[in-house]
Amino acid sequence: MKYDALFARTGGFLHGGDYNPEQWLDRPDILEEDIRMMKKAHVNVATLGVFSWSVYEPVEGEYHFEWLKEIADRLYENGIYFILATPSGARPAWMDERYPEVMRTTVKRVKNLHGQRHNHCITSPKYRALVREMDERLAKEFGSHPGLLAWHISNELGGECACPLCEKKFQAYLEQKFDGDIEALNKAWWTTFWSHRYNRFDQIEIPASHGEKSIMGLNLEWRRFTSENTIDFMNQEIEVLRALTPDVPITTNFMHSYPLLDYNRMAKPLDFVSWDSYPCYNNNYESLAKTSFDNALDHITMRSFKKDKPFLVMESVPDLVNWHDYNHAKRPGVHFITAMQSIACGSDSVMYFQWRKSRGSFEQYHGAVVDHLGRDDTRTFKAVTELGAALEKIKEAAGSVCKSSTAILYDWDSRWALDDAAAFSKKTKNYVKTVGSFLNICLKNGVEADVISSVEPLDDYQVVVAPMLYLLQPHTAERLKQFVERGGQLIATYITGYVDENTLCYLGGFPGDGLKDLFGIYVEEIDTLYPKQANGVRFTDGTVWKAADYCEVIRLNGAQVLASYTDDFYAEEPAVTMKQTGRGTAYYIAARCEEAANAAVLRRAWDAAGIARKALPAGVEYHRRYKEHTAYDFYLNYNSAPVQIQMEAAYSLLDDKEVSGEITIPALGVMVCRVQL
Amino acid sequence: MKYDALFARTGGFLHGGDYNPEQWLDRPDILEEDIRMMKKAHVNVATLGVFSWSVYEPVEGEYHFEWLKEIADRLYENGIYFILATPSGARPAWMDERYPEVMRTTVKRVKNLHGQRHNHCITSPKYRALVREMDERLAKEFGSHPGLLAWHISNELGGECACPLCEKKFQAYLEQKFDGDIEALNKAWWTTFWSHRYNRFDQIEIPASHGEKSIMGLNLEWRRFTSENTIDFMNQEIEVLRALTPDVPITTNFMHSYPLLDYNRMAKPLDFVSWDSYPCYNNNYESLAKTSFDNALDHITMRSFKKDKPFLVMESVPDLVNWHDYNHAKRPGVHFITAMQSIACGSDSVMYFQWRKSRGSFEQYHGAVVDHLGRDDTRTFKAVTELGAALEKIKEAAGSVCKSSTAILYDWDSRWALDDAAAFSKKTKNYVKTVGSFLNICLKNGVEADVISSVEPLDDYQVVVAPMLYLLQPHTAERLKQFVERGGQLIATYITGYVDENTLCYLGGFPGDGLKDLFGIYVEEIDTLYPKQANGVRFTDGTVWKAADYCEVIRLNGAQVLASYTDDFYAEEPAVTMKQTGRGTAYYIAARCEEAANAAVLRRAWDAAGIARKALPAGVEYHRRYKEHTAYDFYLNYNSAPVQIQMEAAYSLLDDKEVSGEITIPALGVMVCRVQL
Amino acid sequence: MKYDALFARTGGFLHGGDYNPEQWLDRPDILEEDIRMMKKAHVNVATLGVFSWSVYEPVEGEYHFEWLKEIADRLYENGIYFILATPSGARPAWMDERYPEVMRTTVKRVKNLHGQRHNHCITSPKYRALVREMDERLAKEFGSHPGLLAWHISNELGGECACPLCEKKFQAYLEQKFDGDIEALNKAWWTTFWSHRYNRFDQIEIPASHGEKSIMGLNLEWRRFTSENTIDFMNQEIEVLRALTPDVPITTNFMHSYPLLDYNRMAKPLDFVSWDSYPCYNNNYESLAKTSFDNALDHITMRSFKKDKPFLVMESVPDLVNWHDYNHAKRPGVHFITAMQSIACGSDSVMYFQWRKSRGSFEQYHGAVVDHLGRDDTRTFKAVTELGAALEKIKEAAGSVCKSSTAILYDWDSRWALDDAAAFSKKTKNYVKTVGSFLNICLKNGVEADVISSVEPLDDYQVVVAPMLYLLQPHTAERLKQFVERGGQLIATYITGYVDENTLCYLGGFPGDGLKDLFGIYVEEIDTLYPKQANGVRFTDGTVWKAADYCEVIRLNGAQVLASYTDDFYAEEPAVTMKQTGRGTAYYIAARCEEAANAAVLRRAWDAAGIARKALPAGVEYHRRYKEHTAYDFYLNYNSAPVQIQMEAAYSLLDDKEVSGEITIPALGVMVCRVQL
Repeated sequence: MKYDALFARTGGFLHGGDYNPEQWLDRPDILEEDIRMMKKAHVNVATLGVFSWSVYEPVEGEYHFEWLKEIADRLYENGIYFILATPSGARPAWMDERYPEVMRTTVKRVKNLHGQRHNHCITSPKYRALVREMDERLAKEFGSHPGLLAWHISNELGGECACPLCEKKFQAYLEQKFDGDIEALNKAWWTTFWSHRYNRFDQIEIPASHGEKSIMGLNLEWRRFTSENTIDFMNQEIEVLRALTPDVPITTNFMHSYPLLDYNRMAKPLDFVSWDSYPCYNNNYESLAKTSFDNALDHITMRSFKKDKPFLVMESVPDLVNWHDYNHAKRPGVHFITAMQSIACGSDSVMYFQWRKSRGSFEQYHGAVVDHLGRDDTRTFKAVTELGAALEKIKEAAGSVCKSSTAILYDWDSRWALDDAAAFSKKTKNYVKTVGSFLNICLKNGVEADVISSVEPLDDYQVVVAPMLYLLQPHTAERLKQFVERGGQLIATYITGYVDENTLCYLGGFPGDGLKDLFGIYVEEIDTLYPKQANGVRFTDGTVWKAADYCEVIRLNGAQVLASYTDDFYAEEPAVTMKQTGRGTAYYIAARCEEAANAAVLRRAWDAAGIARKALPAGVEYHRRYKEHTAYDFYLNYNSAPVQIQMEAAYSLLDDKEVSGEITIPALGVMVCRVQL
Repeated sequence: MKYDALFARTGGFLHGGDYNPEQWLDRPDILEEDIRMMKKAHVNVATLGVFSWSVYEPVEGEYHFEWLKEIADRLYENGIYFILATPSGARPAWMDERYPEVMRTTVKRVKNLHGQRHNHCITSPKYRALVREMDERLAKEFGSHPGLLAWHISNELGGECACPLCEKKFQAYLEQKFDGDIEALNKAWWTTFWSHRYNRFDQIEIPASHGEKSIMGLNLEWRRFTSENTIDFMNQEIEVLRALTPDVPITTNFMHSYPLLDYNRMAKPLDFVSWDSYPCYNNNYESLAKTSFDNALDHITMRSFKKDKPFLVMESVPDLVNWHDYNHAKRPGVHFITAMQSIACGSDSVMYFQWRKSRGSFEQYHGAVVDHLGRDDTRTFKAVTELGAALEKIKEAAGSVCKSSTAILYDWDSRWALDDAAAFSKKTKNYVKTVGSFLNICLKNGVEADVISSVEPLDDYQVVVAPMLYLLQPHTAERLKQFVERGGQLIATYITGYVDENTLCYLGGFPGDGLKDLFGIYVEEIDTLYPKQANGVRFTDGTVWKAADYCEVIRLNGAQVLASYTDDFYAEEPAVTMKQTGRGTAYYIAARCEEAANAAVLRRAWDAAGIARKALPAGVEYHRRYKEHTAYDFYLNYNSAPVQIQMEAAYSLLDDKEVSGEITIPALGVMVCRVQL
Repeated sequence: MKYDALFARTGGFLHGGDYNPEQWLDRPDILEEDIRMMKKAHVNVATLGVFSWSVYEPVEGEYHFEWLKEIADRLYENGIYFILATPSGARPAWMDERYPEVMRTTVKRVKNLHGQRHNHCITSPKYRALVREMDERLAKEFGSHPGLLAWHISNELGGECACPLCEKKFQAYLEQKFDGDIEALNKAWWTTFWSHRYNRFDQIEIPASHGEKSIMGLNLEWRRFTSENTIDFMNQEIEVLRALTPDVPITTNFMHSYPLLDYNRMAKPLDFVSWDSYPCYNNNYESLAKTSFDNALDHITMRSFKKDKPFLVMESVPDLVNWHDYNHAKRPGVHFITAMQSIACGSDSVMYFQWRKSRGSFEQYHGAVVDHLGRDDTRTFKAVTELGAALEKIKEAAGSVCKSSTAILYDWDSRWALDDAAAFSKKTKNYVKTVGSFLNICLKNGVEADVISSVEPLDDYQVVVAPMLYLLQPHTAERLKQFVERGGQLIATYITGYVDENTLCYLGGFPGDGLKDLFGIYVEEIDTLYPKQANGVRFTDGTVWKAADYCEVIRLNGAQVLASYTDDFYAEEPAVTMKQTGRGTAYYIAARCEEAANAAVLRRAWDAAGIARKALPAGVEYHRRYKEHTAYDFYLNYNSAPVQIQMEAAYSLLDDKEVSGEITIPALGVMVCRVQL
């Protein structure tokens, strides 16, 4: 494995962000000032061209790239590289006027009007042709510019289109999937119930509340198709650019746990992963540590798509955004520690949307490095500058990567199917939150974990947690069994293995597809609790923890009981079990327990796997990045008071000194240490 | 009156439910297992054919009934009868494709796409012709099968359609109603206000929020028309079946207090009534007794449509459904007591949706007797079996009926008009809940009551309660007066007699149409209270009870004061009154009082009518069913602790022994006693 | 300035309201009774013809005015004048049938059906022609009737239409506004961002959520256009009437702080202002005083449109309405004091919707002087009669006007732009409420204030408060500066001067357009607080008050600090400042402070301006109306207990006696005193 910075020629981490100078072409003074301020802020990268189509091609067939070339040159001369976006995220007015088919249609079958962003038909051959033409021109104009670091496809791809073109493509997708056999589809979707049988693929309409929404298999395939079709759109752009500029790496920016795209599949064709991070820090409902630990879920999900290289934080904001419910100012020190968290989790960048606030339109109040005020002595500008300087101090860590012994499974298919399932309670399914709750336990125990899809290889892991793995892909059960047999510690929970890849329930007992033997239990009932109702789970050591929302009533099928319910008609029935198979163990947590109960199971699994935990004060996050024989330890103290950490001898990069023994990290302090392995 | 079980040849009560074997035609082992398990569970009836159209007629004109015949034969050979549904509740895809006019149009004038259930135009001649053709074939194929107990029309008929065909039919309905006199309509609907006068019937559009919604008379007629048109649709199906199989009784399944259909009118053409019961037991907001007492409102409403015979519970669930906010597992014992409640209230069946869970599609998690697990040792299967055995023990009670001295009026017309009235508070009208609160008082006092429409005869009753009878049908006032004159005790409340059958306000004082003389009061004002605001009602015996939501300020017009307000500007004004007329008395409760106040008035009326109350412990429900010279007493203890009941000598059918004196009924216990009259 | 009653020939104040006798043409007895009861209730005015089109012209081209003439004559003979409405607020069915283009289209581009009210296309030439024809006929029929006091245009004009005609007119409006220069528009709307550049004006679509909603300049212009187009519609009606009956004054009825119309501009072409007042008195969330003080905001806004003459309360209700969430009965005395509040604030009328309740249709339960009951001994009728008598006692005050030393700025432009701004928190902007909170302070200090647009002259004022003046019109900053220079006391708050008239942010520091120099501060950040979060503001005298929702972090630019923040990262930073310029002072309140803090700043400004405050007990409202050398003092005690007031010698008109010294005003009491100046 190579441990290179993603862009070695920048000399370390990327620091910068979206730069939209086309807004200021009539203000050369501002463009001049931008360069001066970027340099002052230790900025070394600018993302250009996001949404620039109407300036590139103000009327059809008339192209203007010279302004951007000039700016790219100026940046490069001043040591600032650029990432160039393709402008397909928003279309000029003339295009929608002339080719209305490029606009999106909602599932209510309402044709959108011109406007907003992300409003294109995902299928439209016309739009794809226009994008191809534009991308080719961009590649020719900028592909060999020495400042070009990477291509950035479109912007935050997403949404869905239900126009006739998309419906037809969806039908073709289904026809291919079911090998042209409509009876196979009828069986897989269980259409005989409610008289929902189809005669032909071209009878199938895109699901809608004023049409068909009650076939779970149809709904799931629509989610899958929309995701695949978006990836296909992206791939067309990638193909053009890769053909013309084979050496320029390609990415697109993901949006944390965006529900409509299977990022695991979408990440494959990309050269590296990047994403946009916008948590609500210092809100009125949780601690800064909680917000940050939850944000770690996103960083780590992104990192886990390509474990052998860093990812980029393509967008973040040094102060506040304009679209939260309450656009709370970022408190002093919060930008530093949360930006450093990205690095700790494996990012090679801290980048912002955007460099300078737009004077008008929708994002005029979205935070930026430079405010309308225009000064370089603002709290925000100083925080960015400080961070830029710190990134330079730790630049040797760029390119290093994290290594995890534990994996948490997070499947878009399970998420889609579970969200759509007419069962349990629509209000408390909380799949992503449940995944996050297990990662929280890892973070609190200083155990590095990846968050991966159930179709990814498990060979590198000793412990695998599969929370609410409702839907089993073909071979998932088999692969989990092999994982346990060869010594793995596997932990599953309530609502695991209820349905197959078509959302058909497994017959003969959940978890299905053989997993009831692996875990040595089967589920007889699931009790969905109303809010404020609760049960308890008593472990064999006498500790009792709360269970809420979901309690499966399970029967033993060879497993050993680790904990039992305390109350209700299933009191004394098993609540947590384990069963050994081969050299490994499969644990089953039958209820939604509070964290301490889950942590007890994870600790048992880690101990069995010989994975060391790290004693960390509450509210402290720890990660280690590796680079050949060197490691970089990151300690992030989210508390408003200092903490003490016990450390081996190491070199603190930010303080520029050797450290060892008991070290104090101040409130919101960050420590980055080089450790020789 | 005959006291026959609805289906004497079954030997007692029906036990069984929806059975959809067409889902498992490729699994003969499962069909085999079904028969074995049905017999084990004491099942003697299966409802077949609900939603089977696409299997009966997979492509237009190609019919397949042989599979069902085989299953019907197998069931019958094993002692299991069947009810056969017509499949009009859901249509095959080819029909919507070929005849798009059969699909429904929303009042927003959006044409639905193919899908879901209950998505047909109620008017469509094409759909009606297709249904007629199908029903004729079914009648011919199955009409003389020895296992056939009854026809079940469609499934849970409901909804509305606002397509051009329906609009035209609505206009014709209005033209007929107003004898072709548009000025009569203009006057009845008070259209001169807001310039809403119509020139011709064909100008009238179906009411919609983007059109006309401000004419109360129009809105009410649209409700009435939709109800009548649905009944008309049902009647076409009935007509076909009755012509071909005159001896097979016909029903359809109602949905408790479904707002869009006047079940009182819809019940008329049916041979017997059946309904689907799905309360939220053991929720987090009320006691099991409260949920059950409220469910009694539905049982009793259904029973009251045809007082001389039992009704059926066509659907219920032994465990949980999949569409509640929280699909909470049914606690042990709850299935038994609540199923027995149906019987106690006059049902001749306990039936389930469905026998075996569907593997896929929308209802894959709807509870059933047989789970995906497929075992017969589950808690649910055992509860069903236990219930089946108990039904056999009490089978002699089948066919018996309840007799009530008290009637509570519940009018769909009043409900529709009141819900639509732009007055009072949209958030606290609670018409059905108010009706139920009076039934609760009857249940707590062991007084059997019917729940009937205001157009039904009152001759059999000594006490009539008319809660919030906002709209008076023609002759209702007159009939109430006659009821009182010949000795009846009549109790009305606030918001009674405000409007006539066209929603025109009565002039000269509410309650209108002469009722202000009957009650001896008139209403000067109605005060709608905000939540948390309250007044008090002090009876002449000094007791004071809370009043909330609505307080009418009334003036005496010959009545005697039973209670006065305690507070506010109408303190000391009358709140509860009575006036004697002929041999009877009319009571008026001017405010929404807490239960104890209403109970005081009911007790006074029962005492005056010589109706005995029965001392029951809290949380115990009691009913008596009659059969010639025998009576069957049902005691249901919803408490989680045992209760003591004082009893005359009787024979306990479930315990198979004589009982008398103080008897203990355990928590969730049920006692069924034969009493010789 | 003339101090005439608006309609001197009525001999004082107007008392009466909407009268719709066309509902009762078949009931001459009721029409007769109306006259008798009106006279009994001291009614001297009736508003006729609102929504009468379908009676005037039941079929196209067939006109009937004779019925109304007869009624107008009868009223006049009995001393009752009339205001005649044009009927354009609702259309007859035949019109929508024959000319569907007159119906409205929503911004979702859904064409409305016939029905409701206010459902016309604002642009439609056909509708305008039909209205013109009708208005001409009305003017000819009634223009010279001796009982006619005024024309009343349409009714509660409002709403918006997005049909193709309106879109085309909107495009033409924009083309004119930007002098045909699409690049000027692109720049003003900052369309380069997100590729939103337009090539031509006819590409611009009306903003919609399924099209363009992200261009703030576009959204604002759509608001402005809708307002202007509605005014234009009204002006066409005015033009017709003014041409034919130049001596008859014209008004239309406003709806308090209606969001879609700039009433400041709409008031200009009117001869006098009138409005409809419907507060929720005696609710469960605030005191009667609070509700009334907030209602004063509306009275005073209306009054301030034409400061040299009284306004009318065209509609109010003596009891309850039918459309509040809870239609609570008006408590005894509340009608009197709140009706007198209108007079105190400068109204020359107390008028009701409506005289007699409609029997049917949407407003059948809307309060009225005469109930369905039809009696003249109801609480309501007596309250109306009492009020009518009192108005006669104080009739000499009619025509008098209020004079204010203080102005509060309230701009529809700022409101529109701020509401639409994607920033701060959508949930806590509360622009109108914030304006009202400053008026509350004036009322509590007995200081008369006007509420005016920022484009109105400031010459008459010594103190100007500009709360959240987010958008600055051209020259506003300059005019505010001049106001201060010549001795004015100016108070501004957080979120002032962020954008120019096109919603472009000011560069170089907020408040923009030079105001940062006038106030001597600039804003570096704005911190939006979550609910329950708070900061404190400590004044130099040591008092500390709470700040919530919004806290700007400001930097000094020449100002002096009056108060500083107590907490968080901006503790000790300035929170309230002042800066002297010329002979005046500009105060800046950087946070949303509790009332006491704002009051401290206002008191300082009033003291500096030499404006006397008046010591008033809590819950007492005071106004003075002037008429040449006489003044009329109004004291309104909203408390449920009596209060003592210290008074100069005056003559109490309601008591008909001289008063002076300490006077007791009873609970809900009103005192009206003549004072010689």
